Amino acid sequence: MKIISLMGATGSIGTQTLDVIREHPTEFKLAAISVGKNIDMARKIIVEFQPELVSVQDYHDCNTLKAEFPHIKLTYGNEGLIEIAVYEKADILVNAVLGSVGLNPTLQAIECGKTIAIANKETLVTAGHLVMDAAKRNNVSLLPVDSEHSAIFQALQGEKEKNIERLILTASGGSFRDRSRKELEHVTVQEALNHPNWSMGAKITIDSATMMNKGLEVIEAHWLFQIPYEKIDVLLHKESIIHSMVEFHDSSIMAQLGTPDMKVPIQYALTYPDRLPRLSANRLDLAQIGKLNFQEMDVERFRCLHFAYIAGKEGGTLPTVLNAANEAAVAAFLEGKIRFLQIEDLIEKALSNHQTIAHPSLAVIQEVDKETRQYVTSLL
Amino acid sequence: MKIISLMGATGSIGTQTLDVIREHPTEFKLAAISVGKNIDMARKIIVEFQPELVSVQDYHDCNTLKAEFPHIKLTYGNEGLIEIAVYEKADILVNAVLGSVGLNPTLQAIECGKTIAIANKETLVTAGHLVMDAAKRNNVSLLPVDSEHSAIFQALQGEKEKNIERLILTASGGSFRDRSRKELEHVTVQEALNHPNWSMGAKITIDSATMMNKGLEVIEAHWLFQIPYEKIDVLLHKESIIHSMVEFHDSSIMAQLGTPDMKVPIQYALTYPDRLPRLSANRLDLAQIGKLNFQEMDVERFRCLHFAYIAGKEGGTLPTVLNAANEAAVAAFLEGKIRFLQIEDLIEKALSNHQTIAHPSLAVIQEVDKETRQYVTSLL
Repeated sequence: MKIISLMGATGSIGTQTLDVIREHPTEFKLAAISVGKNIDMARKIIVEFQPELVSVQDYHDCNTLKAEFPHIKLTYGNEGLIEIAVYEKADILVNAVLGSVGLNPTLQAIECGKTIAIANKETLVTAGHLVMDAAKRNNVSLLPVDSEHSAIFQALQGEKEKNIERLILTASGGSFRDRSRKELEHVTVQEALNHPNWSMGAKITIDSATMMNKGLEVIEAHWLFQIPYEKIDVLLHKESIIHSMVEFHDSSIMAQLGTPDMKVPIQYALTYPDRLPRLSANRLDLAQIGKLNFQEMDVERFRCLHFAYIAGKEGGTLPTVLNAANEAAVAAFLEGKIRFLQIEDLIEKALSNHQTIAHPSLAVIQEVDKETRQYVTSLL
Repeated sequence: MKIISLMGATGSIGTQTLDVIREHPTEFKLAAISVGKNIDMARKIIVEFQPELVSVQDYHDCNTLKAEFPHIKLTYGNEGLIEIAVYEKADILVNAVLGSVGLNPTLQAIECGKTIAIANKETLVTAGHLVMDAAKRNNVSLLPVDSEHSAIFQALQGEKEKNIERLILTASGGSFRDRSRKELEHVTVQEALNHPNWSMGAKITIDSATMMNKGLEVIEAHWLFQIPYEKIDVLLHKESIIHSMVEFHDSSIMAQLGTPDMKVPIQYALTYPDRLPRLSANRLDLAQIGKLNFQEMDVERFRCLHFAYIAGKEGGTLPTVLNAANEAAVAAFLEGKIRFLQIEDLIEKALSNHQTIAHPSLAVIQEVDKETRQYVTSLL
């Protein structure tokens, strides 16, 4: 039985992780969770899964739950998040929090030798050099949870890194894949949130529409698989059936396919290197689907992907600027403060405005993250 | 450096194996070859690759070559084929002969502990039980060369057999995939030989048109991967880009893709478990291809596939009857003695006419093979 610690239990990945745990009660035990401000859902999770340790965002919520669940250890804030990350009984930490708040706890967990199932993009995007260095030093496995990175990870099983020719990340194209730049000028938040294939959180759905999501994935893939950016390509594949591919230098390509269902990569990370049945899975029927479509990625149409390659190749603090500017801009768009295409403009301005610092420490990354958000906010 | 023994050097797979060896002179050394009656090509191969041992089909040709190449050991006939198969200096035997003549040498090579790269379908189809039993006893690896089985083999790297849900063999549909049964009544040999994707020998091209090729592959897959027939499906995929797939019980599907190029699976078998670059390879560009199509297999339209499942599930000598009847019928079609759809009729009659013998020995298989050919010939 694997003992699981779950950061971000009430989010999209978090609740699907709980589904996987629920389907395999003899295989998995949920020992510790962190939640943000969704205390109602936290209550339900506590009642159902009986974790031993729970961390919430606010002191007040912590006290409320303490009164209701006196037999459970409750904690809160950034310190609480770290307690969840390093919880000693856990075999594996699922990092499913949103944003850069996941970074420090992940580094702490790696230092404690925890296996990490990583769904938090920002950790690798902003501090890939620190995370991979710590993982190497502590001989820790980083297991991807994103469907694309899980596909690549699966395609690499039994293979040697030296034989990789390139990684091919597939991209659905998001909500606006069939619209021209002109047509993007006045799209609404509601339209942007309507993703054709995947049901995900708001921020990542917007990131899919701008293609920043794929850009962040390119940077993640660079770190996770230690592959130069020149060997990471993005291919438009609107059905999201082939989740990604690896081409080897003998020209053979290995791909992982499935219906768009995040529970498959989540479960794979939890069962790796084994697999477990998914009885409730919606199985792929290619004959019924009939056709899979592929198209070249247009980086002029999707400027955020272009920005991500620039930031990734430059490295240092520039990916932190990319990520923080994007978070601030997407938040502004979701709040109705800016139009859709202004997301790109704000990111571009933040990137030009920044003087890259090489090999940044965690403190420097956090400082640049804060400064960038302030800078973007100042432009609104 | 791997020392290679090659049975069937002048055939389609044989010459492509030579291409792979030629591309990697520091990795591979051709030590022994068998050829049939193509003595001109044998001469060229001897001059270029300088093998130490050469076997030809006929005594007369053997003497002719002996006079020309006094420093090379020459042999002939069935005994000669066995000498090639068990050639002691060879690390790996590539079995690329056509027909049931490949069976006995393969069994002998397995008993000598040789790794076998197997392109000869009949070996597994008619004697899968003997071959797999011998391979297990001698701890010998059977490496598939067929693009479909190589794809499955690659998809299984790093995976556990217990987690396999099903194998999905893809089928291009062959020369007549878009024709109805009615339209098949009067097709010519020339039309049948015009395969849309793969350039292969005549017999296998006809087998693709009747779908018997896929039927034989289903039986091969059953033995190679030790999977029951109920878990082996066939999917029409006219582009032959996805070469085959494995679905695991977590609903994840692993697939191997590439341009239709037999040198990729041939080279993979020779380099396994490693890979080597293929500089001359025609690399897959999915964006340029644009679409991959999939369609359910119609077993009423392709009766030979149906026959293969019946023969495979029944086992014993019935797959030998299937294979021998098919070889005799295809030969008759190529000679203009019967029409295309009569291939199926002859196979059906041979199957109905046979009383299956369970767990047949090599002698029984050979006897049934001979009897079946005589029976089919008697019907012409």
